[in-house]
Amino acid sequence: MRDFAIAPTTGGVTAPQGFRSAALHCGIKAAVSALDLTVLAADGNASAAGIFTTNLAQAAPVVVSKRHLERSKGVARAIVVNSGCANACTGVQGIADADRMAAEVASGLGCSPEQVLVASTGVIGVNLRMDNVVSGIRAALPELARGKGSDTARAIMTTDPFPKECAVSVQTDRGWFMVGGTAKGSGMIEPNMATMLGFLTTDAAVPPRLLQRVLRESARDTFNAITVDGDGSTNDSLFALASGASGVMIDEDSYPMLLDALLTVSRDLALGIVRGGEGATKLIAVNVHDARSRKEAQQVARTIANSPLVKTAVHGADPNWGRIVAAAGRSGVVFDIDRATVHIGGILLFENGLPHDDASPQAGEHLKNTDVRIDVNLGTGGGASATIWTCDLSAEYVRINGEYRS
Amino acid sequence: MRDFAIAPTTGGVTAPQGFRSAALHCGIKAAVSALDLTVLAADGNASAAGIFTTNLAQAAPVVVSKRHLERSKGVARAIVVNSGCANACTGVQGIADADRMAAEVASGLGCSPEQVLVASTGVIGVNLRMDNVVSGIRAALPELARGKGSDTARAIMTTDPFPKECAVSVQTDRGWFMVGGTAKGSGMIEPNMATMLGFLTTDAAVPPRLLQRVLRESARDTFNAITVDGDGSTNDSLFALASGASGVMIDEDSYPMLLDALLTVSRDLALGIVRGGEGATKLIAVNVHDARSRKEAQQVARTIANSPLVKTAVHGADPNWGRIVAAAGRSGVVFDIDRATVHIGGILLFENGLPHDDASPQAGEHLKNTDVRIDVNLGTGGGASATIWTCDLSAEYVRINGEYRS
Repeated sequence: MRDFAIAPTTGGVTAPQGFRSAALHCGIKAAVSALDLTVLAADGNASAAGIFTTNLAQAAPVVVSKRHLERSKGVARAIVVNSGCANACTGVQGIADADRMAAEVASGLGCSPEQVLVASTGVIGVNLRMDNVVSGIRAALPELARGKGSDTARAIMTTDPFPKECAVSVQTDRGWFMVGGTAKGSGMIEPNMATMLGFLTTDAAVPPRLLQRVLRESARDTFNAITVDGDGSTNDSLFALASGASGVMIDEDSYPMLLDALLTVSRDLALGIVRGGEGATKLIAVNVHDARSRKEAQQVARTIANSPLVKTAVHGADPNWGRIVAAAGRSGVVFDIDRATVHIGGILLFENGLPHDDASPQAGEHLKNTDVRIDVNLGTGGGASATIWTCDLSAEYVRINGEYRS
Repeated sequence: MRDFAIAPTTGGVTAPQGFRSAALHCGIKAAVSALDLTVLAADGNASAAGIFTTNLAQAAPVVVSKRHLERSKGVARAIVVNSGCANACTGVQGIADADRMAAEVASGLGCSPEQVLVASTGVIGVNLRMDNVVSGIRAALPELARGKGSDTARAIMTTDPFPKECAVSVQTDRGWFMVGGTAKGSGMIEPNMATMLGFLTTDAAVPPRLLQRVLRESARDTFNAITVDGDGSTNDSLFALASGASGVMIDEDSYPMLLDALLTVSRDLALGIVRGGEGATKLIAVNVHDARSRKEAQQVARTIANSPLVKTAVHGADPNWGRIVAAAGRSGVVFDIDRATVHIGGILLFENGLPHDDASPQAGEHLKNTDVRIDVNLGTGGGASATIWTCDLSAEYVRINGEYRS
């Protein structure tokens, strides 16, 4: 690996050279001031990669974007995104509408529709108002410009409490390149909204196959290592576009630089999604150590992170190691409880099968912070570890999700 | 299968002939009026069977009871149970204490300690006050009597909102026999309490191997088909004792009668546990139809039943079929969304990949009941089905589990 240095920068998804965006209100969301449509376009052909929900119920834009990525062999000119309507469970009309969105953008940019990716987020089971969407796309295309990354970040929000964007510049011995991104999360204050969308850009030159690989690898420890409530969506999509405008070529040798930059941007965005989770008041890092494999470490961490009992205990600043041990024990991963340890905020609470309850008050103090950590060592001798980030479970979550749609 | 008729009766766990029980306050729970110790004894040797938590973190009474069932080859005289302390995560001292409980009962009844099963429920990580427990056992044994089933039902409660007991008599062409039972659930109002205990008795004569089989088969669709929050405990235990006092012999031929009676009693107790779940206001039956296998049907039903988004929607009487489709879609079971249907309260809301939102208000009315049903047909042509029962997720659940232990 070559030497390189990563530094934060501004501009979000349009920080890297070769990308422009535009965002506006086309009339899907009720509030006139709310941005609900955005186009992110590359100046020329860009390498493109995508990762999609594994849910069998896949929204029309997911079906269409997968098809386009496959047919274009990983080359794209633009991504078009609307918020306020998920275009999910909308049958053949939904597919036609997503196709139309791509076709409108392609017509404006002078490229093939297969070079346009589509994403939607919002209410499930409702058709898009295509008149508004088409007018919106036509109005947006002439407005494409650099420096509008933060508009794009706001236009993809549904009920996220804050926009999420991030960018870094990477100094290498071949010159510098940038990675930018924006994402939206699971602020499902209006029921039926449940989508994670992420868009990453870079001005490095990355062959499509390498871009798909680096996207998958960076997502594993970032977007795929977070959970708000364990409920996966119909629309989850993560795209990466590489313009090559910086002139820095990424190959096997320089791959680690791009991976590191993508990890930095993706982690920032992913943790933003958790912090903005429904009713969330705390970010919880669940670290599992000394498992037999990374997969097993992640399985234990995910079981703890999704346990309502653990999440409510953290919400109440209760250093309840018993619930953590019980969740680890039912995770399906085999380990010896008597060799396991549990720390909360670095404070040992469970070891050799026995509690250290004298340390409880100190661990309880740690849990009053907004960023808390839980460490579970399985003591298998395998040395593998994993982290899953989650948020606490509050009464506000129930209020948000229990209100009747109206 | 022979003809038989099942009718409800009174008396709970001591309804069947050949069983006596006693319950008292020995000083584990703070409130002097709260029963916290009970002994359930057979008049002579009884066939015994047990099913235990699959959690790796197994409490001392689970370890000891498993060992006793194995060594006695399925013969037992008594079960001793305390509430208020789980005797879990208590190391070698915990094992010694559970052993001592069995030994004290055995000494009083004149049997081998291996013929005594032990169960505990309450706070994790705290040792039993053995002076109180031993005095309690010695005081209880002379008080053993029939008709104290409801005392036993109350003595095993931790923070269950109500006791759970049930009994049936079975009229057969060989005479009649009875099945009785009691259970406690997951009313975890004091954090760290998280145990399902169930005790079933019958005066039919059942060989140990057949008793284990019927217990496992009846639990599959009752105790193992409920979920409050997906969190399994360190202490979960379900025992069955068969005294043979009715003179009715159960063999392969008459097995279905016993299974049916056990299913009846177990379903009543299991649904009682769900109704008494933490913060629960509704009982939700999630029925999955036309799956490729029973296992796959159960997997889909369990994913829906454990989805916080589905549970909060039901709490708010929101007929949110989109969350049900999304949960089914991420369950890991493969099916064609376009062939699936979703009904709430018998009202069709989703079919052919499209919503029937005109029926929403009617389905919303159904969800205002305390007993609600969700039906998902996967349309695989496999014809397999399964039901999982759960409760809604309320702000009260969060309040109960988020309060600091004190």
